[in-house]
Amino acid sequence: MPTVCGIFGIYGHDEAANIAYLGLHSLQHRGQESAGIVAAGSAGLRRQVAMGLVSDAFDEARLARLPGRAAVGHVRYSTSGSSELRNAQPFLFEYARGSVAIAHNGNLIDAPEIRAELESAGSIFQTSSDTEVIVHLLARARENTTEERLLTALAQVHGAYSLVVLTEDKLIAVRDPHGVRPLCLGRLKDAYVLSSETSSFDLIEAEFIRELAPGEMLIIDQHGLRSCRLRPDGDAPRHFCVFEHIYFARPDSLLDGRAVYRCREQLGRRLAVEHPVDADVVIPVPDSGVAAAIGYAREAGITYEMGLIRSHYVGRTFIEPQDSIRHFGVRLKLSPVRAVVDGKRVVVVDDSLVRGTTSRKIIKMLRAAGAREVHLRIAAPPTTHPCYYGIDTPTRSELIASSHTVAEIARYITCDSLGYLSHDGMMAALGVDGAAAGYCSACFTGRYPLALARRGPADGDRDQPRPLRLPLSS
Amino acid sequence: MPTVCGIFGIYGHDEAANIAYLGLHSLQHRGQESAGIVAAGSAGLRRQVAMGLVSDAFDEARLARLPGRAAVGHVRYSTSGSSELRNAQPFLFEYARGSVAIAHNGNLIDAPEIRAELESAGSIFQTSSDTEVIVHLLARARENTTEERLLTALAQVHGAYSLVVLTEDKLIAVRDPHGVRPLCLGRLKDAYVLSSETSSFDLIEAEFIRELAPGEMLIIDQHGLRSCRLRPDGDAPRHFCVFEHIYFARPDSLLDGRAVYRCREQLGRRLAVEHPVDADVVIPVPDSGVAAAIGYAREAGITYEMGLIRSHYVGRTFIEPQDSIRHFGVRLKLSPVRAVVDGKRVVVVDDSLVRGTTSRKIIKMLRAAGAREVHLRIAAPPTTHPCYYGIDTPTRSELIASSHTVAEIARYITCDSLGYLSHDGMMAALGVDGAAAGYCSACFTGRYPLALARRGPADGDRDQPRPLRLPLSS
Amino acid sequence: MPTVCGIFGIYGHDEAANIAYLGLHSLQHRGQESAGIVAAGSAGLRRQVAMGLVSDAFDEARLARLPGRAAVGHVRYSTSGSSELRNAQPFLFEYARGSVAIAHNGNLIDAPEIRAELESAGSIFQTSSDTEVIVHLLARARENTTEERLLTALAQVHGAYSLVVLTEDKLIAVRDPHGVRPLCLGRLKDAYVLSSETSSFDLIEAEFIRELAPGEMLIIDQHGLRSCRLRPDGDAPRHFCVFEHIYFARPDSLLDGRAVYRCREQLGRRLAVEHPVDADVVIPVPDSGVAAAIGYAREAGITYEMGLIRSHYVGRTFIEPQDSIRHFGVRLKLSPVRAVVDGKRVVVVDDSLVRGTTSRKIIKMLRAAGAREVHLRIAAPPTTHPCYYGIDTPTRSELIASSHTVAEIARYITCDSLGYLSHDGMMAALGVDGAAAGYCSACFTGRYPLALARRGPADGDRDQPRPLRLPLSS
Amino acid sequence: MPTVCGIFGIYGHDEAANIAYLGLHSLQHRGQESAGIVAAGSAGLRRQVAMGLVSDAFDEARLARLPGRAAVGHVRYSTSGSSELRNAQPFLFEYARGSVAIAHNGNLIDAPEIRAELESAGSIFQTSSDTEVIVHLLARARENTTEERLLTALAQVHGAYSLVVLTEDKLIAVRDPHGVRPLCLGRLKDAYVLSSETSSFDLIEAEFIRELAPGEMLIIDQHGLRSCRLRPDGDAPRHFCVFEHIYFARPDSLLDGRAVYRCREQLGRRLAVEHPVDADVVIPVPDSGVAAAIGYAREAGITYEMGLIRSHYVGRTFIEPQDSIRHFGVRLKLSPVRAVVDGKRVVVVDDSLVRGTTSRKIIKMLRAAGAREVHLRIAAPPTTHPCYYGIDTPTRSELIASSHTVAEIARYITCDSLGYLSHDGMMAALGVDGAAAGYCSACFTGRYPLALARRGPADGDRDQPRPLRLPLSS
Repeated sequence: MPTVCGIFGIYGHDEAANIAYLGLHSLQHRGQESAGIVAAGSAGLRRQVAMGLVSDAFDEARLARLPGRAAVGHVRYSTSGSSELRNAQPFLFEYARGSVAIAHNGNLIDAPEIRAELESAGSIFQTSSDTEVIVHLLARARENTTEERLLTALAQVHGAYSLVVLTEDKLIAVRDPHGVRPLCLGRLKDAYVLSSETSSFDLIEAEFIRELAPGEMLIIDQHGLRSCRLRPDGDAPRHFCVFEHIYFARPDSLLDGRAVYRCREQLGRRLAVEHPVDADVVIPVPDSGVAAAIGYAREAGITYEMGLIRSHYVGRTFIEPQDSIRHFGVRLKLSPVRAVVDGKRVVVVDDSLVRGTTSRKIIKMLRAAGAREVHLRIAAPPTTHPCYYGIDTPTRSELIASSHTVAEIARYITCDSLGYLSHDGMMAALGVDGAAAGYCSACFTGRYPLALARRGPADGDRDQPRPLRLPLSS
Repeated sequence: MPTVCGIFGIYGHDEAANIAYLGLHSLQHRGQESAGIVAAGSAGLRRQVAMGLVSDAFDEARLARLPGRAAVGHVRYSTSGSSELRNAQPFLFEYARGSVAIAHNGNLIDAPEIRAELESAGSIFQTSSDTEVIVHLLARARENTTEERLLTALAQVHGAYSLVVLTEDKLIAVRDPHGVRPLCLGRLKDAYVLSSETSSFDLIEAEFIRELAPGEMLIIDQHGLRSCRLRPDGDAPRHFCVFEHIYFARPDSLLDGRAVYRCREQLGRRLAVEHPVDADVVIPVPDSGVAAAIGYAREAGITYEMGLIRSHYVGRTFIEPQDSIRHFGVRLKLSPVRAVVDGKRVVVVDDSLVRGTTSRKIIKMLRAAGAREVHLRIAAPPTTHPCYYGIDTPTRSELIASSHTVAEIARYITCDSLGYLSHDGMMAALGVDGAAAGYCSACFTGRYPLALARRGPADGDRDQPRPLRLPLSS
Repeated sequence: MPTVCGIFGIYGHDEAANIAYLGLHSLQHRGQESAGIVAAGSAGLRRQVAMGLVSDAFDEARLARLPGRAAVGHVRYSTSGSSELRNAQPFLFEYARGSVAIAHNGNLIDAPEIRAELESAGSIFQTSSDTEVIVHLLARARENTTEERLLTALAQVHGAYSLVVLTEDKLIAVRDPHGVRPLCLGRLKDAYVLSSETSSFDLIEAEFIRELAPGEMLIIDQHGLRSCRLRPDGDAPRHFCVFEHIYFARPDSLLDGRAVYRCREQLGRRLAVEHPVDADVVIPVPDSGVAAAIGYAREAGITYEMGLIRSHYVGRTFIEPQDSIRHFGVRLKLSPVRAVVDGKRVVVVDDSLVRGTTSRKIIKMLRAAGAREVHLRIAAPPTTHPCYYGIDTPTRSELIASSHTVAEIARYITCDSLGYLSHDGMMAALGVDGAAAGYCSACFTGRYPLALARRGPADGDRDQPRPLRLPLSS
Repeated sequence: MPTVCGIFGIYGHDEAANIAYLGLHSLQHRGQESAGIVAAGSAGLRRQVAMGLVSDAFDEARLARLPGRAAVGHVRYSTSGSSELRNAQPFLFEYARGSVAIAHNGNLIDAPEIRAELESAGSIFQTSSDTEVIVHLLARARENTTEERLLTALAQVHGAYSLVVLTEDKLIAVRDPHGVRPLCLGRLKDAYVLSSETSSFDLIEAEFIRELAPGEMLIIDQHGLRSCRLRPDGDAPRHFCVFEHIYFARPDSLLDGRAVYRCREQLGRRLAVEHPVDADVVIPVPDSGVAAAIGYAREAGITYEMGLIRSHYVGRTFIEPQDSIRHFGVRLKLSPVRAVVDGKRVVVVDDSLVRGTTSRKIIKMLRAAGAREVHLRIAAPPTTHPCYYGIDTPTRSELIASSHTVAEIARYITCDSLGYLSHDGMMAALGVDGAAAGYCSACFTGRYPLALARRGPADGDRDQPRPLRLPLSS
């Protein structure tokens, strides 16, 4: 199951670190591997990071070590190779101009090449993260202000990045020119807040102002808030990640000005139109499939029930990174309700199907609980390609849809029928007509809009992605 | 929010402790304060207990320290006074006849008096738990076998108890004469398993055989399974806890041969009949109110939606025992979905209303998210009295319904209307006609069937409960 | 290397637990396995125990959890079988009359039989310690005051015991009728203090008053201090442990009114008279052999040097209980000074020789550092018998002198000559003439004065010790 | 009390990390704040560091994470400002040419200026240690081999440094041109070992080969061992730290080919000649004053006794860095033996007197134990100046001898007489005639031989040290 990262920032609040802690809690679904906060107080920048969930990483004592009125925070997802504390963000560096903290959601596609160049000039890296490249470029920039140096640094990198950057007196937020990852601005009394998702603002009772525009840099300091463009000469095409709508974002968030819950309900309705089936009951795979299942049931006129119970005492399947545990984790996490499915023809609705192993297990459990037929409906197209823009997807060979037909998958997972939403149907449900303009849906199509970014000045859709050259990590 | 305990036992399996670990995981909803397992191997009984969740209390190393083919386990709820490791069960005691482990779900109503008598005769207690009384009576009994000594010990106590007791060569399971708490028997290949709820059997792929009868003792050893009666001279009236159906049990469990999920759906349907309202959408308080909300919505013909999102990264509200945190916990746990409730007349369905503070907060959050009207429906009668039979309810003064009318409560929690299910409606939904025969519903009525147990040989309903004399703890 | 325990008590001081902590630090040489304190404050008795050294077991936070003006403490030695936290003292028990804490230095020789009797009457034991027997006897006694009940309990046991017992309002100190283990009384401003050794009083700047008499019970409460006799009908013969002088006690302590340092210097002088040798330098095995080596060098007129350096960063050899480590531990602990021993005829003085493995290693190291001859001198007789009165000696088969002649030992440890002090010489050095009247020297002679204690009313020297029946543990 | 650091290296041993662990244990007296090891195995360099003692920092599991046949280790002393884990050595850095680990004993006097220059060119530092400067210079050097790059880097720094540097295939050892800190070479079977002191070789049974020459670089790799000079054009004057002889080194070490124990005995003898006194007993402050006290007693013909007992259960006074604890620590660490000092005229011999607070406390304790007169003799001259070459001395204002006469100090510490060894006497005892040629004794004289190092090409004695500009930290 893929994951991503979440970032948060606040400027101008007496309890900046505590608010950041809550903000990270509301972003916990985006990353469970590590959590961290850097706060800027009178004694400079202070950092606290730890492996694990926000609630485990912080307690009162640790938060008390983060005084100050500005803070940035980060939750990180789990990847196999670099699951180390030293890669936990936000990073905090000291350089000639002082201290700077940075938290990053996304992935730089040319980080390895830039890192090699910097190292050959004598730079010493402290982490294996692509994010550190930005810091070294910043340290070598000669401009007078942090924001100017950051502009210079970012002009040298390509890829997906939403950033919050903290110095002793400024909070800077950046969204890459293509707007791949989300970043939202809000207001909490006199403070400005930034978050990957609007759901954070609900928790802390902040007011949502707007999303950052692609290519926008926001500088917040004692003089207030001002905005500038990463590329003063013109905008790049927008490529917002469609998977944020499908899977990552919380249903109570807004993305692109649209309610995620309603999008998913629409995906479910569309799915019912594209893949109807004669059945007795529609059940979701909780919690990710709930809104789509409600949409499907309503459109199809079939009874909606909670036929699978989710345990509150284990996290999402993907928290455990080892295959051997993952398989078992399904049993620990989901339990069929015999009273709902026994003797019934059951439609199961989920938001995505990645490896197929979890779906196969669920279907077997439902049959063992008495289901007469099991029809799986996926509220998205087949996931055929890995992401290089900040999502921790499996490699292509692990994506079952990359090498198998729908019929083969159905046979493997042992369902009576399997239906994926079409790409056009997905885009229509998201309210987009035409050819997915403004979205990146490379995970469904293999068309990587930023793949050759570094080669030339113009970015755009490419027929020939070169995934083998691209970095998977971070 | 009230809680209870869960117990598990297994006899005849090579990985007894590991199966018990899974069994406890499936009972985790019944108690999150501590978890423990005692296993019986060739080197005798070994015990591992810890504060916290099952998944935190045990890892591979700890389970490896529990060899043997028989085991008992326990999950414990949180109470303010006795939240200490020494009270974590199963208890393991050594006495003249060897070692014995015991895990208890319920509460002995005469434990303080018996403890005082035992102490005055020189007994030294190691815990503050009522359960230890049984062990001391067992140690003083003179019969030859553990089961005979246990019968002698249990003849001297009164109250609610489902027990699993482990010695080096036997597993004994007991349900008190009134059958207040559940206890189920299953089979896993050649092994027998016992659990508070049948959902455990689904997880470990065991077959459900039957519930223990009230007043039954089961002895399992190398010769197989045999049963005897606690009271050979006749049965006591049954008083099964109605709150197990309403609240405690998992929806995928069976109780009394009835599916909990279906009971709750019926409670919701009945609630719609008793308290209809003109509204746009029905939403549950997840996850406890889901089945009843589905029933309500279906009966009322109103759209069902997930208008509240539950975070996976905090436990149930009652995990945190301090009031100051509890209030805040609602915000961390539940988030309203503005797209569902904005501008709508909303029916919120929950399974119970104890103090009212959580409901009040939820209603305020829904209004802040745009709800035009909020109508609260509770799929149970008002909770007016504390439980003395093993549920960790608040004291009577904290139960808002014990001292306030429905109108007053509605005003306090700021809803537009409030409807509780009637007692008769509840019993009808559970399939019981007449005056709740066979159930204890004292928490709704104040009629404590076991209150004067120790005074005379016959137990029964009483008009004059004497709650002040009764112990609250354990 | 043998070890023992240390106990401490204080009554009437605002920082009772802190003083006890310091007192235990000064007794650390008597036991390094566990440390614990129980304090009596307005909220009753509170206990903190932990495995390891006093400095590791306690920090400010733990001491802060021990409010009150009276406290008892204990340091425990390491034994193989019962090195568990549950055996760490002081014990704290609740019984019908309230709470009582107890700390014990010594060993009850009839504990197993009494425990079996108590268990067969229904008592449940919490530890595997002999000390718990006293508590159960106390709980069954019917007298009105704690001291009376304690007298009744102690009348039923035999063996070696110095005790400090704490209740909510009293501190009671007891020394067994034979006075096997030491116990001293002191005064710190308005408070009374009790300690196994007088060196504790120096640390806390208390004034030494006197040693408790054999068979004396001291009761300290708000009315002051009073004394009574365990045996009102007459005194038992005194059998003070001679090994306390030889080995256990700190050189800055007083025992029997005699300075330990001076006793050891005398032992060394006597040793020089009994076992002279033509040599160039006398060196001690630090730190235990220093005083005797100074005495030897002075009497013999040979140069004294520090030819072995002791590391401050490992404890005594016996802290590590596994043989495989112990051998290596000598190298970690002691280093030869080549400049002192190279080309020299060296006399090495130590206080005892138990297994011979350490001495063998030391001698090999000295030869590797250039020593031309190595003559080992032991300031005590050969240790031939285990102790049953509270010392954690090896079993008899591990005591090299129990089965080997001096010549055989010398050959095994590879020294050029080996000399033990004679028994008469030892007693003379301690200022005792005649046949060791008043001392127990069973470890050197096999004459166990308390061995048959339980058989009859009179204790005394026995020709036939029955060690196989006697317990080693405690 | 001043402290310093210790370094260790090994190349060509199957258990390199384990041997390094033992080597560090034998250097523990040189630093107790942190301990660390980096090992080079087939999977590259691995690092394990922790705060605290070697025995606490490492266990079997941590050592097992350090595979490989080469390793470097470090023990670090405590300084107030930079006592953080990130400053614990050895450092491990990755740069363009691979990985490099470095462990440093000493202090670079121009590190702050070089660091500022590097940072202004874009370098990002990870620690606050002067040692990191060397790594950045190494990363910027363009030569082909590590040793050439290291030569280039070291040519740009000035100060005191003994270094061990580890790459994936080489171990490099360096001693600065003035030879301020020691560094010794040994052989253990087929492996080469390096250590700050020869005592390490005794522990691991290695053979001592020789000390590195000032200005020597040793390169050890699969081709064996070769040596080169830091300054091919000629040698710098030697300035070996005299305080290593006086205080730091273990008595069983050799320095400059001389036995430390014998040097200290000579210092004591000389002290007796310079400052005789009519007394009854000579006692050392253990353990640092033992050898000098033996020398004093022998020269003076006065009885030597152990009048102060040192506890094995606390470390050296300087382990605790806060003043409030330090004072109390004396009582915890040292206990007077009344039997030795009561009624006596006592000579106390110590190796140095820094602040005077400890001496004052000792003298008060001795008087409280009955000493009639107390004469303090210090086997070194008055310590008047701080060290800038790697010793963690107090600031000058804390050095009592920097602002007080001997008479004033004697009055403050309340002794009957106070005698310091003269500078000439010290040098004579060390076997040096003339004006301390080849030694740095700036702490006694204020003549800093390396103070202006960076200003010009030639180093040498200066009349005008500029201590205020020099860094104290390491």
